[in-house]
Amino acid sequence: MADHAAKPLALTLGEPAGIGPDITIAAWLRRRELNLPAFYLLGDDAFVARRAKVIGKALGADIRIAPVSASEAVATFAEALPVVATRERATAEPGKPDATSATAALASIRQAVDDVRKGHASAVVTNPIAKSVLYRAGFRHPGHTEFLAELAAEGGPVPQPVMMLWSPRLAVVPVTIHVSLREALSQLTSELIVSTVRIVAAELTSRFGIARPRIAISGLNPHAGEDGSLGHEEQTVIAPALKVLRNGGIEAKGPLPADTMFHEAARNLYDCAVCMYHDQALIPIKTVAFDDAVNVTLGLPFIRTSPDHGTAFDIAGTARANPASLIAALQLASRMAAAKT
Amino acid sequence: MADHAAKPLALTLGEPAGIGPDITIAAWLRRRELNLPAFYLLGDDAFVARRAKVIGKALGADIRIAPVSASEAVATFAEALPVVATRERATAEPGKPDATSATAALASIRQAVDDVRKGHASAVVTNPIAKSVLYRAGFRHPGHTEFLAELAAEGGPVPQPVMMLWSPRLAVVPVTIHVSLREALSQLTSELIVSTVRIVAAELTSRFGIARPRIAISGLNPHAGEDGSLGHEEQTVIAPALKVLRNGGIEAKGPLPADTMFHEAARNLYDCAVCMYHDQALIPIKTVAFDDAVNVTLGLPFIRTSPDHGTAFDIAGTARANPASLIAALQLASRMAAAKT
Repeated sequence: MADHAAKPLALTLGEPAGIGPDITIAAWLRRRELNLPAFYLLGDDAFVARRAKVIGKALGADIRIAPVSASEAVATFAEALPVVATRERATAEPGKPDATSATAALASIRQAVDDVRKGHASAVVTNPIAKSVLYRAGFRHPGHTEFLAELAAEGGPVPQPVMMLWSPRLAVVPVTIHVSLREALSQLTSELIVSTVRIVAAELTSRFGIARPRIAISGLNPHAGEDGSLGHEEQTVIAPALKVLRNGGIEAKGPLPADTMFHEAARNLYDCAVCMYHDQALIPIKTVAFDDAVNVTLGLPFIRTSPDHGTAFDIAGTARANPASLIAALQLASRMAAAKT
Repeated sequence: MADHAAKPLALTLGEPAGIGPDITIAAWLRRRELNLPAFYLLGDDAFVARRAKVIGKALGADIRIAPVSASEAVATFAEALPVVATRERATAEPGKPDATSATAALASIRQAVDDVRKGHASAVVTNPIAKSVLYRAGFRHPGHTEFLAELAAEGGPVPQPVMMLWSPRLAVVPVTIHVSLREALSQLTSELIVSTVRIVAAELTSRFGIARPRIAISGLNPHAGEDGSLGHEEQTVIAPALKVLRNGGIEAKGPLPADTMFHEAARNLYDCAVCMYHDQALIPIKTVAFDDAVNVTLGLPFIRTSPDHGTAFDIAGTARANPASLIAALQLASRMAAAKT
């Protein structure tokens, strides 16, 4: 525990032209006020220093950047924003991704994973990337999370990454994620529900310190199918998965009507809601925790959290980006790292 | 306006064995405190008197029942709960629907529609029914709302009823309603979106007094399809509907990613959110307004509101049922009746 607590968090640069550097600086400025865990940013330190000047000017603040190694980050954090240099340079202006954007973003992610593997950092926290920028540069993964899963595999079998959105008021996991609603209906199987919930249950214990997690599982259809009159997947797909899970000792309730699962009194009855598709999970959490929800990837051999928003190119470099979600991501990563051991 | 304000609301009995009579009595007991609009209950007055004794005993309150005609209801309301007798007797014990349940519930609905048509009442407010009880008695309509639409038709073309869930914090309308998610995908057409939104826009003006309603329209897929990479319905079905609506002078925005439409700042930008399927609409409103959301049927030639919950057989006759949603339904019906003329 002491060991983990003493290690810094590795924070990736994200898309250099986005708000990642801005919210990193804004979060660092609040380090004392919020007693933030020590972190270091992985990126081109000259690029970060330039952006820090822009943001510092907008805020009337003096922002010190310290190029360091990961092992120096904790000692540096109080006085300067520690930046561990990556090999790739970044030259993009705020709001305008350029030819260096993709390589810089990917190098930062790779090195963060490498650092946490080697024990230099306790967790990976990622700033937002721009998928379209990466795709144009030849990136072939569906998204950030899948890329991390492949890095985690080290050439072996790729683990199933599970996306959790977490806030102090509600935690949700969608079983199917970034696919069309039609495709989500096709992808939904008892096996996928079982493997997802097992990962959720195991990590609620190992990484959130919940001895006996209570998991609420939604139906797919209105009123959870109303005994089959509004759809059959509750009976043919979800109920069998619940049976397997309960037989395995997991406290899973459902299938529950999704519309009555998320008001305050209902939320108090479980630790995490596992939902059948993206909007079923993300509508309630973004309704009750829009600014401070954290994206957590479960199922990886390391801890990874991320702010739950995009690159916001329109306000990059203006100091107007809200660091609340990144701050929540840093705090949660630190808490998870402490619970882990 | 004065004319409408002077008329009472016609409140149906609902399933006699359910909590309808209980919440009616509980609402009436709060008439002075909340300055509730005058209403009368349509049902077997002997049955209502028996239930009032049970509830009165549980609450330690003396509940006066006054068998009246509709025209006497307003004058009676302050001193006694006005009950306008229907032809059908009800004999069910709390929690135990019997052979008289279906006929009593249906007679009350029919007479309420008749009363509002004849100008005896300003609006219909309905207590919860038990569909399974009605089905066993030969009822052939999908639900309450469709039955009302057919009564409204008087043998002519049946109007398209539109279900709105309303609360002071959020109003939502699902385009497809009580069908499986798979069937919702099949039913969704540009035409259905257009006809639904037109009814919503017209009645936000005529019945909610909003001169220029702002309507937010959700996408179907995650991230509203993300430019087609997560589904195509936004481009092929929803965008064409939006074009038709805007050409018709309706202020409609969308398709919007459903997960970011419902937090407080986003809600302030529109008067009603029109969503593509049941849970997309009902998850957010039941998350933020679980106790006091009102079910409103638009598209009918009369005003109809209803509490947004079921018969709760398990607590019928105990005085434990929360009348908040019925009270909100009565207040909203009265407000709509006042705005209408």
